[in-house]
Amino acid sequence: MSSQNPVIGYIGLGLMGKAMARNILKAGYPLVVHNRSRAAVNELVEEGAVEAHSPAQVASQVDVLFTNLPDSPDVESVALGKEGIIEGAHDGLIYVDNSTIKPATARKVAEALTEVGVISLDAPVSGGDIGAREGTLTIMVGGPEEALERVRPIFDVLGKAITHVGDCGTGQSAKAANQIMVAAQMIAMSELLIFARKAGADPQKVIQAIRGGAAQCWTLDVKPERLFEGNRQPGFKAYMQAKDLAIVVDTAQEYGVPLFSALVDAQMYNAMLEMGMGELDNSAVIGVLETLSGSKLIEEAQV
Amino acid sequence: MSSQNPVIGYIGLGLMGKAMARNILKAGYPLVVHNRSRAAVNELVEEGAVEAHSPAQVASQVDVLFTNLPDSPDVESVALGKEGIIEGAHDGLIYVDNSTIKPATARKVAEALTEVGVISLDAPVSGGDIGAREGTLTIMVGGPEEALERVRPIFDVLGKAITHVGDCGTGQSAKAANQIMVAAQMIAMSELLIFARKAGADPQKVIQAIRGGAAQCWTLDVKPERLFEGNRQPGFKAYMQAKDLAIVVDTAQEYGVPLFSALVDAQMYNAMLEMGMGELDNSAVIGVLETLSGSKLIEEAQV
Repeated sequence: MSSQNPVIGYIGLGLMGKAMARNILKAGYPLVVHNRSRAAVNELVEEGAVEAHSPAQVASQVDVLFTNLPDSPDVESVALGKEGIIEGAHDGLIYVDNSTIKPATARKVAEALTEVGVISLDAPVSGGDIGAREGTLTIMVGGPEEALERVRPIFDVLGKAITHVGDCGTGQSAKAANQIMVAAQMIAMSELLIFARKAGADPQKVIQAIRGGAAQCWTLDVKPERLFEGNRQPGFKAYMQAKDLAIVVDTAQEYGVPLFSALVDAQMYNAMLEMGMGELDNSAVIGVLETLSGSKLIEEAQV
Repeated sequence: MSSQNPVIGYIGLGLMGKAMARNILKAGYPLVVHNRSRAAVNELVEEGAVEAHSPAQVASQVDVLFTNLPDSPDVESVALGKEGIIEGAHDGLIYVDNSTIKPATARKVAEALTEVGVISLDAPVSGGDIGAREGTLTIMVGGPEEALERVRPIFDVLGKAITHVGDCGTGQSAKAANQIMVAAQMIAMSELLIFARKAGADPQKVIQAIRGGAAQCWTLDVKPERLFEGNRQPGFKAYMQAKDLAIVVDTAQEYGVPLFSALVDAQMYNAMLEMGMGELDNSAVIGVLETLSGSKLIEEAQV
């Protein structure tokens, strides 16, 4: 990279990716973008980005290339497939994946790209669309620390807590660990709210009573008000939570980690999807318990 | 109660009860105490309390009577048994139970005491021995709100967050709800730490990376450092956590609440007890997963 601002590429302009790419653009970096659907590309091109027509074309033009894609096979295809990053790769390119995928896939992609001179960082994020827009994401980074230091100025416009966890894949392991706790809080909140409702205690009073003590957590701080208002719209979509828990389950199987509560939580999200609620917020998993208990959190949930 | 300070009774001077009784004494209230074992009684008598030789004797001398006992049968026996509170009860006595017991037992005791003119409040607490000593407990109150208002000045020396949840028993329901979330955080922390360890990520780095995001909770704020130092001493003893989860399970059965994750968490604590770790801190439940995974959190856990 020269002393001028490096040229950045961003592939995958979904809810998260578009907001993150925009923050990079706003910070003054030249930006090349690529996305399967056109609307987000057009938006960013109007704001000053340049379009490229394949991942290979992005890779050939940039110093640092970001991706933000739905799942492990998408990343593998965009990185290593036909017209993929690997076909436009050049020596010294730094590849940063902001997707949440399997640690094993992150390692596979990094190893293949190493062969063509590319340094890879797995850098999944937490903090949702609000964090993405406001540049306050938590970023968990696996890969060579010196590569992280070189791209840190760009990370600083995306997030506020950037932690180097370890070798390639460990950023994804940290994200999976994060999702174990997030899911546990969501399911526990659902269970305790239905418990309170059926035991004859006002769930709103119960939340008020317990949220300041040892039960305190991000989920109890943020989600109950939305549920009490009958708002189950995302936020973080349940099918993405289910996908992330599938990564947890697969990875636990791979490494021989006996998980109990996390497996139950994964099944609750799988049930939620089968019941047709996958597009709702991850806190709307309470709907599974409402059905199973024959009891609504509020009289007329405006789901 | 006269305009002078009311006379207070406190029965059950364990780790929590003794600290709470002491705060009442320090605030200038005349205090009558009773306890099965003598040491704690002697301590408080030296500090100015008066001893009584049965719950009935305490009840006959005081305006407000607190209990803090291990489990539901203990409360039922001290309140309604031979030489129990009911035998010394008088019209206008306010009875406050700080124990964590079944909501059903709280209601049974309150109904029996109503017959002899006693008003009952179930007022379980959260915040541990530190909260008890420092007077910063979270207190969840069920029972008549006007009775709570009359004793609120005393509650104010015990805790900082005092919430009236609803009718008799709902304080206990709120505490059970609280324990669903606390247990979920403890088990999720254990699972994610072992997951990180086995997936080749440094557990300390993972905690550092995730604790500021959506996974943030009291448990991740407080417990990992102790575990990384090899310290598994209580804190809040695991057998008490197991007892509280048994209340959750019993009460869920009584009210027809289908719980999934909370039942798994309860089983993890039951296993912990059977494995001989019941006297350790509730965060030491990670020991169950260490055994099942053949993997230690730290090289030489100084358990």
